[in-house]
Order: sequence, then C-alpha cells, then structure tokens
Amino acid sequence: MDTIEIIGLVAASLTTSAFVPQVYKTWKTKSTRDISFTMYGAFLIGTILWLYYGIYHNSLAIILANAVTGILVVCMLMLKLRHK
Amino acid sequence: MDTIEIIGLVAASLTTSAFVPQVYKTWKTKSTRDISFTMYGAFLIGTILWLYYGIYHNSLAIILANAVTGILVVCMLMLKLRHK
Repeated sequence: MDTIEIIGLVAASLTTSAFVPQVYKTWKTKSTRDISFTMYGAFLIGTILWLYYGIYHNSLAIILANAVTGILVVCMLMLKLRHK
Repeated sequence: MDTIEIIGLVAASLTTSAFVPQVYKTWKTKSTRDISFTMYGAFLIGTILWLYYGIYHNSLAIILANAVTGILVVCMLMLKLRHK
C-alpha cells in the first residue's frame, strides 16, 4: 500500500476515533449543556449518506469509518437526550 | 453528475456544516466545559491529513470539505482555550 493511502487511513481513523474522548467525557460527566444537538443530528444524517456511498462504491474504508462514527454519534445523541 | 456523487456531496456538506451549530452555540454561550478538547485536537490533525490527501489526489470535494471543517475545528479549539 503506498504512502498516500496510509495517510488516508490515518486521517480516517483520526476523524472517526476523535469522537471517542467526547463520548467518554459526556458519559462520565452526564453533562451535555454545551453540546449542540443539531451538530450531532446533522452529523448522523451525513454519516448515513456516507455509509450508503461507501456500500455503493464497495469501499471498506468509507464503510468502516462511517459505521464507527455513526455508532459514536448515536451515543452522543442518546446521552444528550437523556441528560438535557 | 450521477446520483451517487450527489449523495457523496450532500454527505460531505452535512458532515462539514454540522460543526456550524456547535461553533455558534459555543460562541454565544462562551461555555465549553462539556466540550472535549482532545476530540477537536484529534479532529484537526485528521482534517489536515485529509487536506494533504485531497491535494495529492487533486480532489476538489475532499479539499473543500476539509478546509471548511478545519476552519470550524480551529474556531472550536480557540473558543475552548479562551473559555476553559
């Protein structure tokens, strides 16, 4: 695999795993006042469309990245709804 | 342009513009206690790598999406630093 594709995979894993510290912080503090529900709602719709795009193009990287992001974003939305 | 590429562009614009309501909320409330600095730090590095990837592949969509995301993420980091 050439370097540029490795950079793409590192970029994808960073912009996906970046949500983990936010989900962890919110889960621990149970405080969501500063979190924008609209952001995570829009992000979820975008992620679902990316998933469709990835499945259509048979791109494992796009499917994996957006499946993980989708799960983390759903976690944030549930935490936001539970701890208004 | 065929439908699937339109879906890709809509997905990209959603996962990019999703940050706008969060930046607006944080700018207005000046409250960042619930926001994870680590998330936005990791997101910024990932976005910079995506920019490099997009420039390498001459992909206007990837360059545009990640340039806008990068600016919004830098805004969040500055707001977080200013309003600990």
